[in-house]
Amino acid sequence: MTARQKILVLGGGFGGIFAARKLARLAPDLVDVEIINRTNYFVFQPLLPEVAAGAISAADAVAPIRALLPKVRVRQAEIVAINLDEKRVEVAQGTGRRRIQVGFDHLVLALGQVADLSRVPGANDHALALKSLADAFALRNHVLHCLELADVTEHPEEKKRLLTFVVIGAGFSGTETVGELADLVGRSLRFYRNIERGEVRFVLMEYADRILPELPQSLADYAVRRLTGRGVDIMLNTALASVTNDAVTTGDGKTIETWTAVATIGNAPSPLITSLDLPMQWGKVRVDQYFRVAGFDNLWAVGDAALVPLADHGEAAGYAPPTAQFAVREGRRLAHNIVAEIRGTPPTAFEYASKGALTSLGMQKGVATVYGVRLTGFPAWLLWRSFYLSFLPGWATKIRVAVNWFLDTIVPRNTVQTHRFQRPATRYIHYRAGDTVFEPGMRADGFYMVLDGAFELLIDDDSLDAPYRKTYRPGDHFGERAIFGKGAYVGSITAIEDSRVLVLRAADFERFVAAFPAMEQYFDDYLPAAFPPALLGRAESVAEDEPEPMREAAGGPSD
Amino acid sequence: MTARQKILVLGGGFGGIFAARKLARLAPDLVDVEIINRTNYFVFQPLLPEVAAGAISAADAVAPIRALLPKVRVRQAEIVAINLDEKRVEVAQGTGRRRIQVGFDHLVLALGQVADLSRVPGANDHALALKSLADAFALRNHVLHCLELADVTEHPEEKKRLLTFVVIGAGFSGTETVGELADLVGRSLRFYRNIERGEVRFVLMEYADRILPELPQSLADYAVRRLTGRGVDIMLNTALASVTNDAVTTGDGKTIETWTAVATIGNAPSPLITSLDLPMQWGKVRVDQYFRVAGFDNLWAVGDAALVPLADHGEAAGYAPPTAQFAVREGRRLAHNIVAEIRGTPPTAFEYASKGALTSLGMQKGVATVYGVRLTGFPAWLLWRSFYLSFLPGWATKIRVAVNWFLDTIVPRNTVQTHRFQRPATRYIHYRAGDTVFEPGMRADGFYMVLDGAFELLIDDDSLDAPYRKTYRPGDHFGERAIFGKGAYVGSITAIEDSRVLVLRAADFERFVAAFPAMEQYFDDYLPAAFPPALLGRAESVAEDEPEPMREAAGGPSD
Repeated sequence: MTARQKILVLGGGFGGIFAARKLARLAPDLVDVEIINRTNYFVFQPLLPEVAAGAISAADAVAPIRALLPKVRVRQAEIVAINLDEKRVEVAQGTGRRRIQVGFDHLVLALGQVADLSRVPGANDHALALKSLADAFALRNHVLHCLELADVTEHPEEKKRLLTFVVIGAGFSGTETVGELADLVGRSLRFYRNIERGEVRFVLMEYADRILPELPQSLADYAVRRLTGRGVDIMLNTALASVTNDAVTTGDGKTIETWTAVATIGNAPSPLITSLDLPMQWGKVRVDQYFRVAGFDNLWAVGDAALVPLADHGEAAGYAPPTAQFAVREGRRLAHNIVAEIRGTPPTAFEYASKGALTSLGMQKGVATVYGVRLTGFPAWLLWRSFYLSFLPGWATKIRVAVNWFLDTIVPRNTVQTHRFQRPATRYIHYRAGDTVFEPGMRADGFYMVLDGAFELLIDDDSLDAPYRKTYRPGDHFGERAIFGKGAYVGSITAIEDSRVLVLRAADFERFVAAFPAMEQYFDDYLPAAFPPALLGRAESVAEDEPEPMREAAGGPSD
Repeated sequence: MTARQKILVLGGGFGGIFAARKLARLAPDLVDVEIINRTNYFVFQPLLPEVAAGAISAADAVAPIRALLPKVRVRQAEIVAINLDEKRVEVAQGTGRRRIQVGFDHLVLALGQVADLSRVPGANDHALALKSLADAFALRNHVLHCLELADVTEHPEEKKRLLTFVVIGAGFSGTETVGELADLVGRSLRFYRNIERGEVRFVLMEYADRILPELPQSLADYAVRRLTGRGVDIMLNTALASVTNDAVTTGDGKTIETWTAVATIGNAPSPLITSLDLPMQWGKVRVDQYFRVAGFDNLWAVGDAALVPLADHGEAAGYAPPTAQFAVREGRRLAHNIVAEIRGTPPTAFEYASKGALTSLGMQKGVATVYGVRLTGFPAWLLWRSFYLSFLPGWATKIRVAVNWFLDTIVPRNTVQTHRFQRPATRYIHYRAGDTVFEPGMRADGFYMVLDGAFELLIDDDSLDAPYRKTYRPGDHFGERAIFGKGAYVGSITAIEDSRVLVLRAADFERFVAAFPAMEQYFDDYLPAAFPPALLGRAESVAEDEPEPMREAAGGPSD
């Protein structure tokens, strides 16, 4: 008789969910299964572009993990560290102040990959991702926010930036995203009197020489026709060189002025996996055909986090592609193999041939290849939706979602901006040489700390004998003078080199300085030393930024 | 022939929306109407408790203002200042860096009221409100987060706080909220193995001697029976004395340990209105029976922001109650009167008698009194939902929402925690004397600046000859040592008086110090001066708080 074994699954994507479910079903007498995930729900990731576009509601693209895995212990927590020697994982729950250790006998790494564009200057700080439900909400709100601003701005160059939407990467995710965004904007335009359809521009930027490399060329051609027909500008053979506050630049030196860059490229291993010093290749953990990590008898990896050799091709011939279809089968096979390992029976190599591939292009159109049959248009789109329905737990839920989708074909959903646009408290901003940070009359929105590059302050008005200039370099800061004066800039600040700053939001800066005497003292000393008296206290007086006195800081649990 | 007049409506609640709509319809040849609102959608506020409970989806409780008001110019912006003399309003759009002036001939104040509990210590910082869609999301996520934590905590006193939910105020909003929360938790419990129904407590706290004062006593009695039958503890004649990080205290000295206090009381005028020096009474702008503010011929107020005398009672006899029913009629009448003013015809006094009142109690039960007829249970609830449907623009939308509501009666929606629990970057926390802030082993979550009161640090372990104590008073700070050490607390910090701090989140603090040399220098000097060498660099080394390297600071428009 074997002792009960604790199987700990890290990550609630396709691989993790299906591994945990199969484990709990295969050997309830033998194993206790626990899954740890950052959220308490499973996201059907391929539907995120449709959530971002408001084509389906968020509630219809997710399923509570507890409902999917009734026999598994579910822990919503942030994983802090993995200790393989001591067979335990440290997690942070809630605000993460207490350190909690979760032990295991077998550990399954199903952590997927993270978005990482650190090789492209500015991309991590300025490009939007589409990996989580929060990303999808953020993208939708951002796009609607751009329309709101474009409708009322009086600056043509700003309007152009606001109405240019760039999607980087033309795989499944990028292609679908640009199609769905074109829909969202197209459907919304009738509400914005001051925006002409011709003023809106969509760009799909791809490094390779074609889109949708996972699909046959004929289907990709169909997708190209559909997208260009809806006004999407497809730029092939184009590398992403940098992303700044208001532009994207390409490898061949083009600049696209935009406030919306969505990056669907740049996957990297989870930092948790990097920290483990495991055998890696192409950003994934190398496993054998049984999902076991070399050198361990209780460590397994599955899904996008793992490089899984395909049994029928041999290791040199091919690896499982990072798709939901494969992750589901990998998870199930992995479960069998862990149980075999515990029972002392031989494991089975992973073997699976793709049944096809499919994607939506928005507007109830899709492309699909299934068992060698190629579909386009509405049938492909319908197949795509059905594929998701098959994953939902319980018939009742399936019916509810199906009815809603049917309703959506008749009555489009409200695409309202459900969240107020709010800057994060601290953020990094990249500027190109020549970019204007502030113009006279603008109100200070933050405290700017220079990290790289240089900026010039220029004050030039009638009350001064000569224009006043001041240069800010790394270690210097600006913006505090206007914040303290509750006022507006009297000069302009321009980047004179390619530069990077950290900005602390004005409201947080004010609270912070008021609560921290050493900081207050610093500025009391700094300002008279840094500026001539004529320039101090000159900020024009306007009302405060935030008329609402409270509600930003509601209380909550402390653990 | 009269010149075209610009009517500017501030605020998109019931009063503002119906005034703007009527104005644009009554005299399209005579007036240009613009409405300014913080969001681009209208929220049916009475449904917010149901959104918070996940009983209906957010998209079904809102309507895009542009769709409601096709003939009105809609501006989504934050109002910064109102200048009556110069007939212009300053607004901030987007990040609000440019100052934009919007002129008017007639100004309608439809700004409602804001939540303000500044008279109750700690309430503004710790109590949750239910005024906006964002509040409703925050409440739902907070409650689900409490369940997640309660399911895994090993500390019984924490579990109790996590499972105690206090709603303050037993008017329509509070009564409905506590009913809906009881539903939400009740429906969710089956997914949480480690929570027993008997461990969950709901409290409805009310200053008066009865609930639902707007309804006849017999209906209130019915509501009391319904709520107590579902386990809600109703505390009447109970004042709110304070809210701290983990408790609510009452006027008669009781303490209820809780991490969830929802306040539906404490309305105050918008700070924008306060700034205007208008005739005020009970926190509202005094207007005449034509909605005109005394002393102005082009300034009007409507809805909750206004104190509207009822014509049929005389000024001493009564004022319009702050309900949607009245606001809608007020808005329409106001529109007529503005047009009359422009045309030079006499205005008409506002006259309206309530047709009744109704509210939902959750679980498809309600109470209503309509034209003198009293309804309870399902019929009242159905009437309540129908009332909302009548406000939705267009038949198609009405049908979609109705079908969804019907589906919800068969298949409950997924109540997933759609947003990751995230602290604001800076927040104020109130502690009672004796409260523990940190215990040894906890990880530093922020930089704490003492504003009021006092705290004691106590380090007492084997490596020290004697326990080390240090007191922090206003102007002092703690938390930085553990953040810099990337580690955990080695001692405990306890409030030794009733205290208040400002906390800057650890991740933001780290970025800030790294980007600001003067701060770095301050701490380099401070730490060796403040602590004996034996205590420095002692923080136990653990991995970083945030395994995810990016995504918190996505880029966006700068104006």
